[in-house]
Amino acid sequence: MTATLQAPPLGGLLDDIVGKHRPRREAGSVPGNIPFLAEIPFDRFGIAVATTSGEVFSSGDAHVPFSIQSISKVFTLAMALQGGKAGALWQRVLREPSGTSFNSLVQLEVEHGIPRNPFINAGALVVTDHLMEEAPDAATQLLRFVTEQAGNGPEDTLPGPFIDEAAAASELARSSRNLALAHFLKDFGNLRRPAEAVVESYVRQCSIMMSCVELATAGLFLARDGQGARGSVLSPSEAKRIGSIMLTCGMYDAAGEFAYRVGLPGKSGVGGGILVIVPGKCTICVWSPRLDAKGNSLAGTAALAELSDLTGWSVF
Amino acid sequence: MTATLQAPPLGGLLDDIVGKHRPRREAGSVPGNIPFLAEIPFDRFGIAVATTSGEVFSSGDAHVPFSIQSISKVFTLAMALQGGKAGALWQRVLREPSGTSFNSLVQLEVEHGIPRNPFINAGALVVTDHLMEEAPDAATQLLRFVTEQAGNGPEDTLPGPFIDEAAAASELARSSRNLALAHFLKDFGNLRRPAEAVVESYVRQCSIMMSCVELATAGLFLARDGQGARGSVLSPSEAKRIGSIMLTCGMYDAAGEFAYRVGLPGKSGVGGGILVIVPGKCTICVWSPRLDAKGNSLAGTAALAELSDLTGWSVF
Amino acid sequence: MTATLQAPPLGGLLDDIVGKHRPRREAGSVPGNIPFLAEIPFDRFGIAVATTSGEVFSSGDAHVPFSIQSISKVFTLAMALQGGKAGALWQRVLREPSGTSFNSLVQLEVEHGIPRNPFINAGALVVTDHLMEEAPDAATQLLRFVTEQAGNGPEDTLPGPFIDEAAAASELARSSRNLALAHFLKDFGNLRRPAEAVVESYVRQCSIMMSCVELATAGLFLARDGQGARGSVLSPSEAKRIGSIMLTCGMYDAAGEFAYRVGLPGKSGVGGGILVIVPGKCTICVWSPRLDAKGNSLAGTAALAELSDLTGWSVF
Amino acid sequence: MTATLQAPPLGGLLDDIVGKHRPRREAGSVPGNIPFLAEIPFDRFGIAVATTSGEVFSSGDAHVPFSIQSISKVFTLAMALQGGKAGALWQRVLREPSGTSFNSLVQLEVEHGIPRNPFINAGALVVTDHLMEEAPDAATQLLRFVTEQAGNGPEDTLPGPFIDEAAAASELARSSRNLALAHFLKDFGNLRRPAEAVVESYVRQCSIMMSCVELATAGLFLARDGQGARGSVLSPSEAKRIGSIMLTCGMYDAAGEFAYRVGLPGKSGVGGGILVIVPGKCTICVWSPRLDAKGNSLAGTAALAELSDLTGWSVF
Repeated sequence: MTATLQAPPLGGLLDDIVGKHRPRREAGSVPGNIPFLAEIPFDRFGIAVATTSGEVFSSGDAHVPFSIQSISKVFTLAMALQGGKAGALWQRVLREPSGTSFNSLVQLEVEHGIPRNPFINAGALVVTDHLMEEAPDAATQLLRFVTEQAGNGPEDTLPGPFIDEAAAASELARSSRNLALAHFLKDFGNLRRPAEAVVESYVRQCSIMMSCVELATAGLFLARDGQGARGSVLSPSEAKRIGSIMLTCGMYDAAGEFAYRVGLPGKSGVGGGILVIVPGKCTICVWSPRLDAKGNSLAGTAALAELSDLTGWSVF
Repeated sequence: MTATLQAPPLGGLLDDIVGKHRPRREAGSVPGNIPFLAEIPFDRFGIAVATTSGEVFSSGDAHVPFSIQSISKVFTLAMALQGGKAGALWQRVLREPSGTSFNSLVQLEVEHGIPRNPFINAGALVVTDHLMEEAPDAATQLLRFVTEQAGNGPEDTLPGPFIDEAAAASELARSSRNLALAHFLKDFGNLRRPAEAVVESYVRQCSIMMSCVELATAGLFLARDGQGARGSVLSPSEAKRIGSIMLTCGMYDAAGEFAYRVGLPGKSGVGGGILVIVPGKCTICVWSPRLDAKGNSLAGTAALAELSDLTGWSVF
Repeated sequence: MTATLQAPPLGGLLDDIVGKHRPRREAGSVPGNIPFLAEIPFDRFGIAVATTSGEVFSSGDAHVPFSIQSISKVFTLAMALQGGKAGALWQRVLREPSGTSFNSLVQLEVEHGIPRNPFINAGALVVTDHLMEEAPDAATQLLRFVTEQAGNGPEDTLPGPFIDEAAAASELARSSRNLALAHFLKDFGNLRRPAEAVVESYVRQCSIMMSCVELATAGLFLARDGQGARGSVLSPSEAKRIGSIMLTCGMYDAAGEFAYRVGLPGKSGVGGGILVIVPGKCTICVWSPRLDAKGNSLAGTAALAELSDLTGWSVF
Repeated sequence: MTATLQAPPLGGLLDDIVGKHRPRREAGSVPGNIPFLAEIPFDRFGIAVATTSGEVFSSGDAHVPFSIQSISKVFTLAMALQGGKAGALWQRVLREPSGTSFNSLVQLEVEHGIPRNPFINAGALVVTDHLMEEAPDAATQLLRFVTEQAGNGPEDTLPGPFIDEAAAASELARSSRNLALAHFLKDFGNLRRPAEAVVESYVRQCSIMMSCVELATAGLFLARDGQGARGSVLSPSEAKRIGSIMLTCGMYDAAGEFAYRVGLPGKSGVGGGILVIVPGKCTICVWSPRLDAKGNSLAGTAALAELSDLTGWSVF
């Protein structure tokens, strides 16, 4: 347990959840195309809650950095919506659930190169391409953004977010599907930068390493009407809208099931992390590396369902 | 304006919205396969808000009965989840957004006869089939349910909900698509009653006539943790879960857009009505007959977006 | 062996083929939705060759009647093209291979109710609907057509083609998929008669019982420039064109493989029969009840491949 | 007119066809992604017939080199089947008509990276990858093959087949769709060489320039049981099988229509050429640059339909 001492109820709750949901035996799968993710011990489990009033509660492996993978899409989307550039982006990507796998090319063909939402891979490539117009090195720009939002006190001796370049290089060598998506987008005229450059930036974004505490803290602006660590990140309405996209599209092809069981906007990554927003109250980040059939953290999803039940946190 | 006098702000707001959003010229479309819906004057517009504290505000044509069409799916789902029968139902229908048209057969074929959610037509046919096991006349049972929930005081001289049997017969004669869906479900072993009987019941459910005031009142249990006009309708968690399905799947293929613009769980019907839940606060029902390209009320959607902006009502 | 004595080579060849390809042990599948087809002994195997010069060679169970199932589609197509009515039909059905399963609804949805060819079920339903305009009892009309073409000599004591009404009734009770297709076609405006009536007629057509000898003889007009048992059935060009549709679309989703291995126009049925045309030379009918994964007779396809190799019969 | 004088009927026929089918006004389309093809005068029209007995008849622009584009796929397939390497290839590509557009990614996703046939782009990329295992410069190898087969007499002052490298470079710069297909194949493990190298080779193969006379002559081995200009190219059965694939898959999504109207195995290219096989008799090559909606030469298809009618050439 870190942070404040004056909140035993939530702190104890997180400890209980770690005790109950930390995997005791190997179960679930690991992403086939990212070897280093398969090597992480199956029993890693961390959880952190960052409140809008500035407290951070955590338990388990909440300070261990892990690969944020697709959780990065929440932050790149936020960056893309800053400064009134949203209009141009929404010409190039929709905001609807996809109903198909996160890396499917079928939908893209049927809808003539307009990705269904910014959280499927094709949509994230368009967001990256959009960011690269102003900042060619979008991955470094993202790293700067999350580092600023994650903040750190003077006593903090942790390294802070960083890009695992070796992991990125390894993943890049297995990026055929994303390259296919990028070239396909280009064929439809929905990619401006070279396909290879966009995929490389995207893969480096996914290879950012952060802990549960850092991710929960970095995402706080979404629970706080757009107010980040050092001032406004987004307008209140844009912040709310990212929440709506997380709720309808954030959990791959299990968004409906997650909304049903947990009732909160969330975004998962195949690194085993899930970032959840409780509007006005807090953010939650849970991490456990083994995945269910849809690609979402097995233990993480179960833990969030229980936390939602116990606290009553739900947008419905 | 009806109901309480002590709440001029909301009452005035609804009047303003009627003044601004009631269509002044013909725009939008009408459903091609339901002739009588095409005959309703384009400038009809009503809105009602029913609060969890028992007040009802309304303006415009809020007392005019209209065809609830797919809004019926919210109530049949609630009925199907009563009494602990949910488990059997969720074996037969998923809870995921569909990403395809509401009456598409493609998804059903790809997923071997398991509809993606209870709000696409295939899913609603399965829910109807489920209800018919205990009550063969599911449409009349639904009428009784909404009448009980809509309630009415002693001074109420309105007719209350009723089935427009002539409209149902006319729609039934044009039900080839729904018959195709029903036979297809049967082929996959996911329909127990005869396909024709299930479609007939479904069409009669859709042909129930209710006003904005009646619909908003009847749906109040969804904003009130499952508590209806005469006691508990659903457990709090089941009520919340219907809200989550409305948010992710309630607006045909525009659920994501509606979540983005309005930020509230809603369910629309091709009769031009939309029922919206503001959890813990109120329900809203808006009605205007002309539809956008996705089949949702054109003026109704715009009015709800403005109401959400003005009041700050949003789950995000 | 029947027919002529003066052709030992072909007669002996057929005997060899029966000896080699008649199944010795149970393998392959039976159609799940037609129970009586599952009861036919797996080791039934018959083959017949009818030459354009009037000879008939046969071996094995070549006189045993079996359910012609989809082979009926060749004859209903021929009937529909008689008398210059082709133009109207080709407005309602295409002539392209489908690339999907024979009873898929996906293609129909994508192409707005126009079946890809007359040999997938949706296409055959349209052909049946087309025939019913002039002859409401299309199945009986088809029976008359094949009986006339199959002919029979004075010594012939065989019953001739007949409809197995009990089998038809049993299959009709399991026709949900075909009813779905028919209602779907109706929804697109591509069916004039009631969906139920068209499906009933179609199922009765499929339930016609014929032997290999009868089918080979009945199909001779396709190898003889349209000249049938009692004069012209089709113009030479229409006869050739049916051959082209058989070659590209006649073997369900294995038309390409069959063209590759056998090199001749063929049409199979789930009853285990395959009718093949050798233009200008002869017709071949083979029958063995067990099916491969695509729904074509397992032993029958192998036998035809060998016969094609040994005789050099191939259109290529 | 070239070649023999003793065959006025066929020679006159070709002159008549040129007179009748050479476009008089601009109609049809040009491929959007290959600019130089759009610049070719719309009224170009050539036709050549090469007989199995060694004669060549031709008329119109039959000696003008044009871009063979997808006709190259016939020759690369033949090369891939030489020397008994067929088995390995048919593990990686099917032989079924696709039912979808020639450059669709949908089928590839549904069938897990196994292209439906060697004539859709994905299939041709696999064939190219297969060839590159033995000859990394597959395009030059193809050029050598067609040059050898096209032959040329001592009096021949024509340049012979050549690669238009400028055109190839221009097309390569617009190859996003093919790059998407290649990376997608790689993702499924069905491409061994780098995606970029395979696409480059494929584009150079398509950029080979040949005349009608050269193409008809080069393809003669397919009408002559595999016997080419200098001995056996393929076994008789492999030659026949290429014919079967041309008939079922050779004309993009209009293979069925072409089989119906023309009744002969053919392969078209977006350069406006069509190569047709009349088994045992001759080959035909027609060229006219403007295309129909399916990507096949508009005037060329019409000319072939008439030639088939007038000569009776048809495999059916």
